[in-house]
Amino acid sequence: MTIDKLIEKMRKLRNPSVIGLDPRLDLIPEYILSRAKARYGETTKAAAEAIQYFNRGIIDAVSGIAPAVKPQIAFYEQYGAYGILSYIETVAYAKSKGMLVIGDIKRGDIASTADAYADAHLGLVKTWEMEHSVYGEDFVTINPYMGEDSIEPFLRNCREHKKGVFILVKTSNPGSGQIQDLPVINSNATDAIASASAGEPAPLYETVASLVSQWGEELIGQYGYSAVGAVVGATHPEQARRLRELMPHTLFLAPGYGAQGAKASDLVDGSLVNSSRGIIGAWKQPLYRNRYRPEEYDKAARAAALDMREELSCLKI
Amino acid sequence: MTIDKLIEKMRKLRNPSVIGLDPRLDLIPEYILSRAKARYGETTKAAAEAIQYFNRGIIDAVSGIAPAVKPQIAFYEQYGAYGILSYIETVAYAKSKGMLVIGDIKRGDIASTADAYADAHLGLVKTWEMEHSVYGEDFVTINPYMGEDSIEPFLRNCREHKKGVFILVKTSNPGSGQIQDLPVINSNATDAIASASAGEPAPLYETVASLVSQWGEELIGQYGYSAVGAVVGATHPEQARRLRELMPHTLFLAPGYGAQGAKASDLVDGSLVNSSRGIIGAWKQPLYRNRYRPEEYDKAARAAALDMREELSCLKI
Repeated sequence: MTIDKLIEKMRKLRNPSVIGLDPRLDLIPEYILSRAKARYGETTKAAAEAIQYFNRGIIDAVSGIAPAVKPQIAFYEQYGAYGILSYIETVAYAKSKGMLVIGDIKRGDIASTADAYADAHLGLVKTWEMEHSVYGEDFVTINPYMGEDSIEPFLRNCREHKKGVFILVKTSNPGSGQIQDLPVINSNATDAIASASAGEPAPLYETVASLVSQWGEELIGQYGYSAVGAVVGATHPEQARRLRELMPHTLFLAPGYGAQGAKASDLVDGSLVNSSRGIIGAWKQPLYRNRYRPEEYDKAARAAALDMREELSCLKI
Repeated sequence: MTIDKLIEKMRKLRNPSVIGLDPRLDLIPEYILSRAKARYGETTKAAAEAIQYFNRGIIDAVSGIAPAVKPQIAFYEQYGAYGILSYIETVAYAKSKGMLVIGDIKRGDIASTADAYADAHLGLVKTWEMEHSVYGEDFVTINPYMGEDSIEPFLRNCREHKKGVFILVKTSNPGSGQIQDLPVINSNATDAIASASAGEPAPLYETVASLVSQWGEELIGQYGYSAVGAVVGATHPEQARRLRELMPHTLFLAPGYGAQGAKASDLVDGSLVNSSRGIIGAWKQPLYRNRYRPEEYDKAARAAALDMREELSCLKI
């Protein structure tokens, strides 16, 4: 199971972090951008080429340190077909370097449509008698708003292809509470929720957490973590502690560390902590820009990834 | 504003329906598939080519009857970069034939990432000094789970580029209630909700509806409909009537008609009703397959679209 491989890699590298590959053009050094522009003009193809070159440098630099990368597909999808190609090649390159890949796609749709997303990203897409691994991620993030029948096609692919998912529970953005924190009276909640809340309203994300825990029960690997993980923003430390109780077998994917303000002490054990700009844009930051030239953006990323590993060494996996 | 163009077109054609372009290969006639396969083998490129050819036939057949098409991006994204190209070309072709295009993308992500999605699908993506309309839809569907800061980048594009969105409120799938129907005590609700529910718990989708209504207030066009629409499944007639009261200025995008079992009498006024398989797969259905050969799939689609228009003639726009 991929979740077991991920846990093994986190333990072996003593590193609970994941490198977010969110390659906005302003995080890419000028020499890479101008070379792509010279070749292809000011096109989406040039942007996609620059991203791919940039990502290869980052992946080469961090593959011996961090267990996984998390490309955010929006930053690729925005460049159309060239961007998607660059996303697919980034996934393949990271895997060829032994890293696990979490596709941050946040898809969510009804059953037959969810089949298409899930087969394409985690499983196999059939054209006549041929089967294609189209995107090839190990994990993807998904959105629970449409309910269990929108989740099941992803769970089926987790079972059939030993893949994993991280379901949005409590996200890191400032506005996350508007829907996710709404007080819900949930008569259908699991025992864990029911006994804890005893008929009192509890935030919506706790109901989603109980569902995530249920959906993951059949997919618990040899280290006690389920292939069904949860996105729990690092920017909400109290909620994360409560969610850790509600989802004891769930690996947390924790965005919000670094650029969004969360610190190591805000995190709970069993978290895979994401940093994007903090690593891939390290070469622009005060802490690293005096030590590394823009051409050494990869070395700056490596230094930042090592510093992050050190900061997170208190976390248990 | 695009919402005004849509309303005008619905009125002029006396047709509140939208043709869902969900081109699963089993809905495409064999002669199209085998030609694509002969040219490109059993590849994702062949599948994407077949889809594009098929879609052009459908669009030519329905462009004088129906105001809009709704391609579901999952059925294109599953074929990788070729699929995305085919999606982009489908959008462009429908627009060239005077149809409005609703991209069924159901994206939802935090602010900076939502910017990338929103600019790519509704606005302009910048590479150096060039600005590109990458996907070029007139409307897209979006997911509200992450809250207002995930919605705002789309609203900004609605303001700047006169586009529109449909936000998921109550979806048509059987499992939609698991999250969307949870009873919420919402102290921050709008007056409309507060007076109606008087402190009593109300389903989550009603809170989302009140937010959709608020978000849309600034974007109401000349016919009284906002550029911020709502997805309200046609499979839930009672809820749709209640939601019509809560969102008086909101156009409903109603999936679930036909294949998912909803009938014309289940719909409320001010709905744009989607049918996918019922139209594009008409050539395979008992009602049409004796009248049309597979090579006449476009004529079968036209006949089904005309029948649907007739069935929906009771609906007011």
